[in-house]
Amino acid sequence: MNPQADPAEDALLQHPWLPVTIDGVQLLSKPWFGETAYRILLTDMQSVWEEKIEAAAVEKRSQELNRRLRASAAAFFSHLCEVAQPCLSGGQQTGGEVQMSVNRQQDGDLTLRLKSELAGLPFYWEFRCSPAPVALVCAHLVRPLLAMSRLLQSHVEQLEDLLFRKDEEIQDYQENGATLSRGTNLVLLGPNGISHWEPASTKMLTG
Amino acid sequence: MNPQADPAEDALLQHPWLPVTIDGVQLLSKPWFGETAYRILLTDMQSVWEEKIEAAAVEKRSQELNRRLRASAAAFFSHLCEVAQPCLSGGQQTGGEVQMSVNRQQDGDLTLRLKSELAGLPFYWEFRCSPAPVALVCAHLVRPLLAMSRLLQSHVEQLEDLLFRKDEEIQDYQENGATLSRGTNLVLLGPNGISHWEPASTKMLTG
Repeated sequence: MNPQADPAEDALLQHPWLPVTIDGVQLLSKPWFGETAYRILLTDMQSVWEEKIEAAAVEKRSQELNRRLRASAAAFFSHLCEVAQPCLSGGQQTGGEVQMSVNRQQDGDLTLRLKSELAGLPFYWEFRCSPAPVALVCAHLVRPLLAMSRLLQSHVEQLEDLLFRKDEEIQDYQENGATLSRGTNLVLLGPNGISHWEPASTKMLTG
Repeated sequence: MNPQADPAEDALLQHPWLPVTIDGVQLLSKPWFGETAYRILLTDMQSVWEEKIEAAAVEKRSQELNRRLRASAAAFFSHLCEVAQPCLSGGQQTGGEVQMSVNRQQDGDLTLRLKSELAGLPFYWEFRCSPAPVALVCAHLVRPLLAMSRLLQSHVEQLEDLLFRKDEEIQDYQENGATLSRGTNLVLLGPNGISHWEPASTKMLTG
């Protein structure tokens, strides 16, 4: 998997994971819809699934699931984006009745079934997601989460340093006999008042 | 995989990941050594590997790799723990010459070859690690990292709140004409001085 060679992969790496609830099931979702193709990643934090589908396969599946419906591939795909994207992004549906169900197969696959309406007729779609490989889980979950944890950890350290310096400044004012106009001190913690945080935040990755 | 049913799994979930450099390769490692068995997890953040081995297999492999060496299974295992545990925990070796090499196989397996000395004869061992399933990657990396990020995020918010209140207190002293004995103000940031942090820290999991 070479991100440089695959614009969908590249775009998807830049996307955030979005919390969604589909059919009562809480998932994190990363949907990407192009002009004629889409790719989605889903996880319940126990498993990770993906589907990547190109124009020809979208058209074939549209016809297979919607035998009575006559519409161009472009019209199908445009309608699919319109109704599916909000469901997979945790946003509000843009109107119309859209039903979506989650079905976890014995073989580990995850199918999201969508029912909507197009030109007055029912419109069906299935997102047929397969278990994702570990390399994808590392690229889209492990490495970004580790980078975020490191960033937050260094942020915490800088904030703690700032707090320590502010405490010194406050102590200096107090030692010089300054009093507050607003009554009692606003912050009652001493210079070590935040030290109880450290054991929890600096431990690495216990389960 | 049911953690309740497997003490090694249970113990391993409580262990932190440890940064190690073996044969010039940087890895994160989670080793667990029991009385007669061990389990290790390794990751280079692109792939994740594991080996879980029981007493009988340890004995068989000891004999296969050390034909000239005559020692009890207990003596083999005790020596293995003594020389391998420091290498896999990022700690100092406890004396004696221990060489370890990393070999990544075509089939995705990862073999760590160890050479040491036992009773004056060379002692060989191979950690034969296979790619770990996604469920393990989720349990040992994704969920702990997500929990840690959430904890750190909430810690950051509380520290920012504390800083804001300390700034108010400092401002109050200053408005009442207080001056510092140590010269210029120690902390020059205003109440909004930390707001530039927020965009970086609150974005979720981009790649």
